[in-house]
Amino acid sequence: MKLSALLTSAGINIGVCALLLSLYSVLRKQPGNVNVYFGRRLAEEHGRHRDSYILERFVPSPSWIVKAWQYTEEEILSAAGLDAVVFLRAIVFSIRIFSIAAVICVFGILPLNYYGQEMHHDHFPSESLDVYNIGNVMEKSRWLWVHCLVLYIISCAACTLLYFEYKRIAKMRQIHITRSPADPSHFTVLVRGVPKSTEESLSETVRHFFTRYHGPSYLSHQMVFRVGKIQKLMSNAEKVYKKFMHWNATAFDPRSRPNMFRCGLCGATSNSFELIRSQSEISAAKNNPTHSYLPEKECAAAFVFFKTRYAAVVASKVLQSSNPMLWVTNLAPEPHDVYWSNLWLPYRQLWLRRIATLLASIVFMFLFLIPVTFVQGLSQLDQIQQRLPFLKGILKKAFVIQIVTGYLPSVILQLFLYTVPPTMMLFSTVEGPISRSGRKKSACTKVLYFTIWNVFFVNVFSGSVINQLNAISSPKDIPAQLAKAVPRQATLFITYVLTSGWASLSSEVMQLFGLVWNFLKKYVFRIKEDDPASVPSFPYHTEIPRVLLLGLLGFTCSILAPLILPFLLVYFLLGYVVYRNQASNIMNVYCSRYETGGRMWPIVHNTTIFSLVLAQIIALGVFGLKESPVASGFMIPLVILTLLFNEYCRQRFHPLFRNFPAQDLIEMDKADEQSGRMEQIHEQLLSAYSQFPPESHNVCLVDGEGTSGSNRKDESTESRNDLSHPTLVGLPISRLRQVVTAVSMLVSLQSKSSPM
Amino acid sequence: MKLSALLTSAGINIGVCALLLSLYSVLRKQPGNVNVYFGRRLAEEHGRHRDSYILERFVPSPSWIVKAWQYTEEEILSAAGLDAVVFLRAIVFSIRIFSIAAVICVFGILPLNYYGQEMHHDHFPSESLDVYNIGNVMEKSRWLWVHCLVLYIISCAACTLLYFEYKRIAKMRQIHITRSPADPSHFTVLVRGVPKSTEESLSETVRHFFTRYHGPSYLSHQMVFRVGKIQKLMSNAEKVYKKFMHWNATAFDPRSRPNMFRCGLCGATSNSFELIRSQSEISAAKNNPTHSYLPEKECAAAFVFFKTRYAAVVASKVLQSSNPMLWVTNLAPEPHDVYWSNLWLPYRQLWLRRIATLLASIVFMFLFLIPVTFVQGLSQLDQIQQRLPFLKGILKKAFVIQIVTGYLPSVILQLFLYTVPPTMMLFSTVEGPISRSGRKKSACTKVLYFTIWNVFFVNVFSGSVINQLNAISSPKDIPAQLAKAVPRQATLFITYVLTSGWASLSSEVMQLFGLVWNFLKKYVFRIKEDDPASVPSFPYHTEIPRVLLLGLLGFTCSILAPLILPFLLVYFLLGYVVYRNQASNIMNVYCSRYETGGRMWPIVHNTTIFSLVLAQIIALGVFGLKESPVASGFMIPLVILTLLFNEYCRQRFHPLFRNFPAQDLIEMDKADEQSGRMEQIHEQLLSAYSQFPPESHNVCLVDGEGTSGSNRKDESTESRNDLSHPTLVGLPISRLRQVVTAVSMLVSLQSKSSPM
Repeated sequence: MKLSALLTSAGINIGVCALLLSLYSVLRKQPGNVNVYFGRRLAEEHGRHRDSYILERFVPSPSWIVKAWQYTEEEILSAAGLDAVVFLRAIVFSIRIFSIAAVICVFGILPLNYYGQEMHHDHFPSESLDVYNIGNVMEKSRWLWVHCLVLYIISCAACTLLYFEYKRIAKMRQIHITRSPADPSHFTVLVRGVPKSTEESLSETVRHFFTRYHGPSYLSHQMVFRVGKIQKLMSNAEKVYKKFMHWNATAFDPRSRPNMFRCGLCGATSNSFELIRSQSEISAAKNNPTHSYLPEKECAAAFVFFKTRYAAVVASKVLQSSNPMLWVTNLAPEPHDVYWSNLWLPYRQLWLRRIATLLASIVFMFLFLIPVTFVQGLSQLDQIQQRLPFLKGILKKAFVIQIVTGYLPSVILQLFLYTVPPTMMLFSTVEGPISRSGRKKSACTKVLYFTIWNVFFVNVFSGSVINQLNAISSPKDIPAQLAKAVPRQATLFITYVLTSGWASLSSEVMQLFGLVWNFLKKYVFRIKEDDPASVPSFPYHTEIPRVLLLGLLGFTCSILAPLILPFLLVYFLLGYVVYRNQASNIMNVYCSRYETGGRMWPIVHNTTIFSLVLAQIIALGVFGLKESPVASGFMIPLVILTLLFNEYCRQRFHPLFRNFPAQDLIEMDKADEQSGRMEQIHEQLLSAYSQFPPESHNVCLVDGEGTSGSNRKDESTESRNDLSHPTLVGLPISRLRQVVTAVSMLVSLQSKSSPM
Repeated sequence: MKLSALLTSAGINIGVCALLLSLYSVLRKQPGNVNVYFGRRLAEEHGRHRDSYILERFVPSPSWIVKAWQYTEEEILSAAGLDAVVFLRAIVFSIRIFSIAAVICVFGILPLNYYGQEMHHDHFPSESLDVYNIGNVMEKSRWLWVHCLVLYIISCAACTLLYFEYKRIAKMRQIHITRSPADPSHFTVLVRGVPKSTEESLSETVRHFFTRYHGPSYLSHQMVFRVGKIQKLMSNAEKVYKKFMHWNATAFDPRSRPNMFRCGLCGATSNSFELIRSQSEISAAKNNPTHSYLPEKECAAAFVFFKTRYAAVVASKVLQSSNPMLWVTNLAPEPHDVYWSNLWLPYRQLWLRRIATLLASIVFMFLFLIPVTFVQGLSQLDQIQQRLPFLKGILKKAFVIQIVTGYLPSVILQLFLYTVPPTMMLFSTVEGPISRSGRKKSACTKVLYFTIWNVFFVNVFSGSVINQLNAISSPKDIPAQLAKAVPRQATLFITYVLTSGWASLSSEVMQLFGLVWNFLKKYVFRIKEDDPASVPSFPYHTEIPRVLLLGLLGFTCSILAPLILPFLLVYFLLGYVVYRNQASNIMNVYCSRYETGGRMWPIVHNTTIFSLVLAQIIALGVFGLKESPVASGFMIPLVILTLLFNEYCRQRFHPLFRNFPAQDLIEMDKADEQSGRMEQIHEQLLSAYSQFPPESHNVCLVDGEGTSGSNRKDESTESRNDLSHPTLVGLPISRLRQVVTAVSMLVSLQSKSSPM
């Protein structure tokens, strides 16, 4: 690829970016889009200053950037949670390390590469990008030690920065734990694999076991219920009934907003089922949280509440029974984080599910080779002409060539990549995690492996040896293979940074999908009501892998093709602004219902180390190819030192991300006992986990202290007042008949009146 | 190799075996060797019926085999510990599975291979062994499905047997734990990484921490002392002094036995230091076990005693501090099992040591390629003749050829292999384990990897592609490579079974080293005294890898070269008798001072699964080479099923080998509290771990209840009465001067009188 093609690509992307960003700064001021850009805040305060037409609304302005800067880390932490901060720290780390790398490489390496060979340099814009690569340096050049030194500097800087970030985030996590004084998850253990007994109910079994073996600290427990087929049918019936009632209301209720064109397909929230619910039932449910309406549907899992945090941690860490598949204990996730529909899964199934999803992910990764092979074919023009001869005419034009080779491949790749996160999320769901955050973390790892494999390795290997996918089968040649292939594919990676990085960032800030959906909703489906369920949670499982992948490209290309670094740095800077905005942003746009408590950081750390080691191995290969054994030899201690550093961090910090330190928990317990808060916490604890709160589930935390458990609890206990599901499940037969009648009515009405 | 060469080799080995075994049955009756064969029993009862010349003593008799059979598993368990039983179970498992395999393969596969091709068969003994291999079966033969079916049967049988063995051993381990009612290790936690404080001593820090955070269950603690340079010097001085006193005694004491030729180099036990020790010192040490004579040598480790077993397990499982490198807790090993000289190692060093020894082991493994390459060169006659042309004349003789190709290679390999276990034991010591059993287990794993790599893989790969060690670098071709190479090397493996298996078994029963050492000691060095320290503990780290390696050879060769199976079966049967004898044997010959509590079994299980999968992968390759895609395809589900089975066992049983189930411990605690035994246990607990008991350390448990902790404790408290080391360490300066004078006297005497 020529420099001019790259510039074309960069131009297109800068144009798209600028357009989208100005559009965003205009659109965000339009009242109609307020629920796209301020979904979070909307849940808080319902529609102030709607419908005020001012000219200022239509002038692009950078005020949102200024606003994004105004938030301090403390504010973001308290509002959007630790995960958001960790994510931003990952970007800050990238900015720091790539600033250093960019300065050193652009001023140190780039001239060396450019003047690496005695050659005639073309006119600047039409020069091939390869002259900026290490491929242009002569063999046995004595300048290769500069490359070696630069890699040492980058590695040392990266490790130092990583160490301090890890330390800081570990500290933040500790503070995060100790600062949430009444988080019910600290007192609760999820028990799975409760053995079935013919003599007593599962609930009795749980009570007996824990009073016998954990008597002094056991407080209470709450069984998990399996939502069986009948319940599913009934909850569907409820939905249809709701819709029917709503339809009724909107059609005939004079108080309802005028709504002329309305199809029957749109969901709507209502509290229509309130009518078939007696106050006595509510109070019964409240007083006895373990009372079950359908005792035959109890499943072999329960939440067990303990009197102290330490007791809960102890119960979760110790092997309970001499059959490790029974009485499996884990610390419970936070109430909002519980993934209820996975809890009834038999524990002894889980290992099979884990293996099955692992295999499925691997198969999916390899199936994905088909589009990738196609894409990397596009970047080699002669290959296309050979395969698709009818394109020969078009491909003669310079501009078309530049678009096809410079821009199209990464766009196509990008489009295919959009299918990956939902698929991986599906796999992670099937895997059977007990928490939403666990599911997201698992999906994040899967997407990360997927992206690194499919974007980096497959492009590198099949780009160099087209259609020959067995390059991976000889590990010894990998450094040399990589060394040959990476510089050659560097231009593809630069365009990838442009399209995947820049453009996706601006589409992220634009919330293109949200905008389109909002438009459709308003002007096609004519829905006026804002559904709080539609406020998304931040897609860490797509954003973290993207940032890490671009970091990988940066490290591996840094000394081989330093031209990528400025583009990457711009990406990270832009990303910092955009994600801060989205975290003015996560405070505005997204809803953080649950979080992993910073457990994303070890993923970031490990991937960065992997990237560094990969870069070093590739450099080893390159120096080998350039016949510079000294530089090549100097790489080996660097690899070893980096791995040792990683191992040290794993020993020093990683346990903190898997366990709670007993010391902190005991101190918290003591403080609570002395201040007399413990009683209150215990009371709240018993009602914290409710399996069937359909509406409260979707309400986002709106106060400034989103991470504090006590607030959550208040909210969830409030939301129990309009619970409709649990009582529906426990309906007596007579009421069930009412529902069925209503449903049949609705079906007949639907078939007549539906405009679709 | 011809069948006749194999028969020669078998003949030599049978001869050696028969000779050694009859020698054994004679020698074991000689009173002079009683401390070789009955070292254990000797520690018990001192020399009955010595010097009674009866003719019967010189007649070989199989009575020892009968005796070996008489012991029940219960007796072995109670006398020699769980590890001995686990080891015997591994052999029983091997006998069972290889009986099945031998019957099926010899009657099912062998004829198929023999008549696999339309060929003229030579006279029986001079026929090449290759006709019995799968290599003799024609390509696309329709009989290959028999091989496939047989492998299915063997795999299913192996998995079923493994499952029941695992279940049984898990149960035995549970009983082993619950049956040792007062094992001090159940109440004790080893804390490492105690943070240094300027304000208080380490001991104070430990007390404060545990009273603060584990107040209700904390009982006491005991610091670990670092044996510094001065102590080492003094303990050396003590040894020399002892020797001097002994020399004095033997030279001038009329009560001593007449001892004409005595050099000054031999160690001797005495209680000569008793004289400089006052009773008051002993009682002081007894009353205050944490009292230190040299407080400046305290190191950052301590044994912490808890009131209940459950509390100790909890403290060992929970992350204590927010710095995971501080306050690291593990369940303590049993008092005899503690590896004191590793306890002072700073905890933050251990991960580095672990990595360093791993690297050292790998380097050692690869350095070992040199002798192995030489050995496998020997088995290819033309290669030898080409390299060492002067041997051409000798190598013409048929008998020499048979010896060189059939017997010599495995003997040389065997000799080199003898250096491996001590080296690996050294590595495992450097690694820094806290217990002797942990060190042995670690050495066992290392030796196992080493043997499998160097005996199996290197022989297979470099045997087929001589001097070309890069076969491992292309994983995709491995099945095909193995499929080509394994049948070719099958004859080498058969001879390996003969030499390494049969001959080493008979040398094990003979205790050749012990016998030679005993002879030297008696007739060259003229030592009469029996040193109890010379009674060895059972070398699990050499025997388990050998049994597992032969199992690996059996599985991989079963359908390819079924001729190995009868030899293997004989080995295992012989092994069963020999090891039972040594376990009449472990009860007689060896001293089981410590044990892993059956934690060797997961190693056996995993290796067997590995062998099975390897056999299946090789079969996959072989069927591929024979162009039988159906049979080849049928191997893939078998591999997957075997791996799934392994994963199931890992989930179901493995946690039991790493943790104690809380349920059992709590029941034990309750039983002890109700019966009032707890107080007594607590009292014994405080004196259970003594860092400096030089003599008691070497005394083997002689009663029938070797695994019971209470007996051990009694014994160790008894042995405190003749402690000499701790008081030496705390000697006042005046006494130190006495020692130094004695040493200088001794040195001058030595230089004059030593006959060497």
